[in-house]
Amino acid sequence: MPTMLGQNQYGKAGTRVVRIVRDGATHHIKDLDVSVSLGGDMEEVHHSGSNAHVLPTDTMKNTVFAFAREHGIDSAEQFGIHLARHFVTSQEHIHRARVRIEEYAWDRVVTSEGAGEHSFVRAGRETRLAQVTYDGDRWEVVSGLTDLTVLNSTDSEFQGYVKDRYTTLPETRDRILATRVSGRWRFNWTDDARETPDWDTSYEETRRHLLEAFAETYSRSLQQTMYTMGARIIDERDEIDEVRFSLPNQHHFLVDLEPFGLDNPNEVYLAADRPYGLIEATVLRDGCAARIPVGLTDL
Amino acid sequence: MPTMLGQNQYGKAGTRVVRIVRDGATHHIKDLDVSVSLGGDMEEVHHSGSNAHVLPTDTMKNTVFAFAREHGIDSAEQFGIHLARHFVTSQEHIHRARVRIEEYAWDRVVTSEGAGEHSFVRAGRETRLAQVTYDGDRWEVVSGLTDLTVLNSTDSEFQGYVKDRYTTLPETRDRILATRVSGRWRFNWTDDARETPDWDTSYEETRRHLLEAFAETYSRSLQQTMYTMGARIIDERDEIDEVRFSLPNQHHFLVDLEPFGLDNPNEVYLAADRPYGLIEATVLRDGCAARIPVGLTDL
Amino acid sequence: MPTMLGQNQYGKAGTRVVRIVRDGATHHIKDLDVSVSLGGDMEEVHHSGSNAHVLPTDTMKNTVFAFAREHGIDSAEQFGIHLARHFVTSQEHIHRARVRIEEYAWDRVVTSEGAGEHSFVRAGRETRLAQVTYDGDRWEVVSGLTDLTVLNSTDSEFQGYVKDRYTTLPETRDRILATRVSGRWRFNWTDDARETPDWDTSYEETRRHLLEAFAETYSRSLQQTMYTMGARIIDERDEIDEVRFSLPNQHHFLVDLEPFGLDNPNEVYLAADRPYGLIEATVLRDGCAARIPVGLTDL
Amino acid sequence: MPTMLGQNQYGKAGTRVVRIVRDGATHHIKDLDVSVSLGGDMEEVHHSGSNAHVLPTDTMKNTVFAFAREHGIDSAEQFGIHLARHFVTSQEHIHRARVRIEEYAWDRVVTSEGAGEHSFVRAGRETRLAQVTYDGDRWEVVSGLTDLTVLNSTDSEFQGYVKDRYTTLPETRDRILATRVSGRWRFNWTDDARETPDWDTSYEETRRHLLEAFAETYSRSLQQTMYTMGARIIDERDEIDEVRFSLPNQHHFLVDLEPFGLDNPNEVYLAADRPYGLIEATVLRDGCAARIPVGLTDL
Repeated sequence: MPTMLGQNQYGKAGTRVVRIVRDGATHHIKDLDVSVSLGGDMEEVHHSGSNAHVLPTDTMKNTVFAFAREHGIDSAEQFGIHLARHFVTSQEHIHRARVRIEEYAWDRVVTSEGAGEHSFVRAGRETRLAQVTYDGDRWEVVSGLTDLTVLNSTDSEFQGYVKDRYTTLPETRDRILATRVSGRWRFNWTDDARETPDWDTSYEETRRHLLEAFAETYSRSLQQTMYTMGARIIDERDEIDEVRFSLPNQHHFLVDLEPFGLDNPNEVYLAADRPYGLIEATVLRDGCAARIPVGLTDL
Repeated sequence: MPTMLGQNQYGKAGTRVVRIVRDGATHHIKDLDVSVSLGGDMEEVHHSGSNAHVLPTDTMKNTVFAFAREHGIDSAEQFGIHLARHFVTSQEHIHRARVRIEEYAWDRVVTSEGAGEHSFVRAGRETRLAQVTYDGDRWEVVSGLTDLTVLNSTDSEFQGYVKDRYTTLPETRDRILATRVSGRWRFNWTDDARETPDWDTSYEETRRHLLEAFAETYSRSLQQTMYTMGARIIDERDEIDEVRFSLPNQHHFLVDLEPFGLDNPNEVYLAADRPYGLIEATVLRDGCAARIPVGLTDL
Repeated sequence: MPTMLGQNQYGKAGTRVVRIVRDGATHHIKDLDVSVSLGGDMEEVHHSGSNAHVLPTDTMKNTVFAFAREHGIDSAEQFGIHLARHFVTSQEHIHRARVRIEEYAWDRVVTSEGAGEHSFVRAGRETRLAQVTYDGDRWEVVSGLTDLTVLNSTDSEFQGYVKDRYTTLPETRDRILATRVSGRWRFNWTDDARETPDWDTSYEETRRHLLEAFAETYSRSLQQTMYTMGARIIDERDEIDEVRFSLPNQHHFLVDLEPFGLDNPNEVYLAADRPYGLIEATVLRDGCAARIPVGLTDL
Repeated sequence: MPTMLGQNQYGKAGTRVVRIVRDGATHHIKDLDVSVSLGGDMEEVHHSGSNAHVLPTDTMKNTVFAFAREHGIDSAEQFGIHLARHFVTSQEHIHRARVRIEEYAWDRVVTSEGAGEHSFVRAGRETRLAQVTYDGDRWEVVSGLTDLTVLNSTDSEFQGYVKDRYTTLPETRDRILATRVSGRWRFNWTDDARETPDWDTSYEETRRHLLEAFAETYSRSLQQTMYTMGARIIDERDEIDEVRFSLPNQHHFLVDLEPFGLDNPNEVYLAADRPYGLIEATVLRDGCAARIPVGLTDL
């Protein structure tokens, strides 16, 4: 046979589970989209179609709902750890599990009588991410976020760059810097000796450091701003060893108003969609190896 | 000739303008997506292709940018009024203008040193809408929002409905009620005698009443909740005569966990995408005529 | 009470039904997304939440599936007629029904052994639309399509337009004309005297005339091209009295390559996303009234 | 300093270039979305913000347009090779380039007078992909496609699978099998000795084999169908050594019509959106190493 099977995995994506916890009249909500991927002794199903080693993806969906009841959802990370351990330890032919979770945030509706006990409004624009991988031996927990859009209206320049035959861009000492942050960070947590992070606090603090670093950095390039954001997280959060960012440079072009007899002292901008710059990097704690996969488009 | 021209209009959609106002070191941001539509003596361009009456859509785009500099952007509504008046009064063959604006909200990044002076993060999930129509005589200002997602985790029931041969839905006395609000409201403002509303305050208050009515209503049907939301706005905001809602009923199904030996006391739900209920209505101040167009799918 | 109920409707959107018909070993497929909207004596449910007049939207979904079995799906239009009649005639308090259907096309997979008997591949980019409205007395059938993207690489000019203070666009005698056609057309069919159109043939022919008119017209403006497309349909298809188009002008800008020492003889273009022109009109058979609703953004 | 820089790259994404070639009155069209990513000596820009090694992403965009004129666009792959070689060989500090291209297909509009010379309609639903990577030494060309949706209405079963406490899925001997194919395949091409493939022919043939294998395989599991598709390509196309698929299992559930007194002999299905199965694997020519990156969600 001239072909062979390489990396493979299968699972159920997009299981959307909402859990309500009733603390008297006060309700709490968790809203997750859970995707499970499993791997193991799967040669046979690819070659002959025999499903003797295959746990149906429908069962993975059922397990997500059942675990939400049995174990609750303390945090997306903790829920992912429960699920990943379950599949690897309970299924003979499953040797690796990855659970990827998107979490949607809700605020309480605040009325003239205070915060609602059971009324919620979807919060923020970003989506929180958690990803747990387990192979029966080693754990890897990566958290992150997408669609956190930030903008500095000054303190950004771009100059001193290489110019070749195709370069027409004028240098600038004052521009808008805007990006829609997509970031992931890897924990050094293992399930033996050391303490488990408070996953929710860790997320909130990491997000805060990321935003602060963006806001406080005078930017000579988006690469520099990105590196500063990653280094700040590594510096401030002992539980994190690696950060990976993918930052689209959302260009804001100063509009030329001269044809209309008007000046434009850095006031009116066109926000462009395409093309856009795309800046990506990993920042590591000194001495640590990179383990966040860098994606399909990476070099 | 066996055919004739009916309603027609043309314009430029999707002009994305960002304006930064510098108040010393403190910057302010307005972020709009502006769409202009014009109508008038346009028979000729449809029949022969003569553009003698046609102001290019490229010019509309230029005008949006120039007006952002010349007039500033106090509010989306005020900016729309400037633009609509300009096209109708300056162009001999243009008799009607509609300016439709989406506004994206930004919060200041808050760091340990306080709120940033020039650093912003995109706020909330909803998009604010403003639509101004002018025909040289009559004004119509409609504001609104889309993608405001709300959820009550109790105080919602659904029973006592009609049952026919195809009805299988069980009645329920306690369900999740969730919807992604799309709403528009029409002002009774004209540009002569009466006071101009503070558009931004009006928006914030209307949004607040809408949320409060949703949170405070014990719901026997989504129609009742919707009507209450509209009536609350009419009651509380004298400047508004008409409200139109389109509310998808985002079903949350209680998962049957019995096959796994588990109960489910209104705790674990599946959030479904499709199909979804869709509830739409107009609420009017008594004696006022409906003038918000009800959309392509309306009966 | 200072408020009153205006236009209202409710229903189930997004019921995705796939029907397979087995003609021996040869299968046929219909793939629809069906949305039902009903109206009638619905004051009570808005005011008190009483559902005594309310057929659940879940029942509408069930009915779609049951009718796919009971009546089959000859065409989207015919299926919509069955459904609309059913709701209006079987429910005492329902007086109006609108059924809106998106239809997704499939081709047979062609292998070296010929066209597959039961293997299909999703065809084309456009989505076919059908909308049936019935109030117990009058029928309205509107068909249409969206996302049919067409482009002429020459035979398009744009000149002789109005110039004002904000006009900078240079005139052009040879440009790319591209648009993503969204069109709807209304049939003069009623369910009494006259013949029922063959809905599928009518759709194919209307689509063909639309494309031919686009391809054969030397364009002085997109309005002229649009009108020609509509008039061609009215001329050629007796069963259609009204056509409504919404055509985004997908700008293709000739790139200035002079900074790189290169000419650009109408060869290299940048395809822009935003902003875009938006041209909309109704074309009517002489003497017929317009009845296709013109949409939320219309003047 | 406790942090260090890991994998990094930067570039311009989403440069949408359309090229028209005029062969007398007959025009030809190429429509690409080009994304360039570069890497090299980039420590400094991350640490200090110095752009001395940075070719602006705006220049990459310019280069795409200029190359479309200078070199033409024979195929997406060939265009990517030109671009990747240019950046690596012309820039001292750039050592790696990846060019990723989406190609949109157009058919000629066919009228009663034959195929149009300069009128086109967007074809098919799938998007063709090409990705070229070059590090000054080694080339890697990967082609592929996304959004090719296929369906078998019979000859698919699913049974004999593992059952655990959470399994409720009934076995089935006749189901609909549908998926939206996302596939990539790697060429063994290098730029020295051997012949360069005809990239367009290779794409068409690979797509054909993929479709034929899907249509001709009696499926016991989607894994088996996927492996057969990959193996068929490896068997039939000498220029390809590796294939990677990501196949969502688009579930079609047979609707239970019994509550309405109806049977459902594999005729009426609900096409579900979420959750969905997701089956992924690499198929390799015997003895070849896997080099297509397997993506962020892979184990």
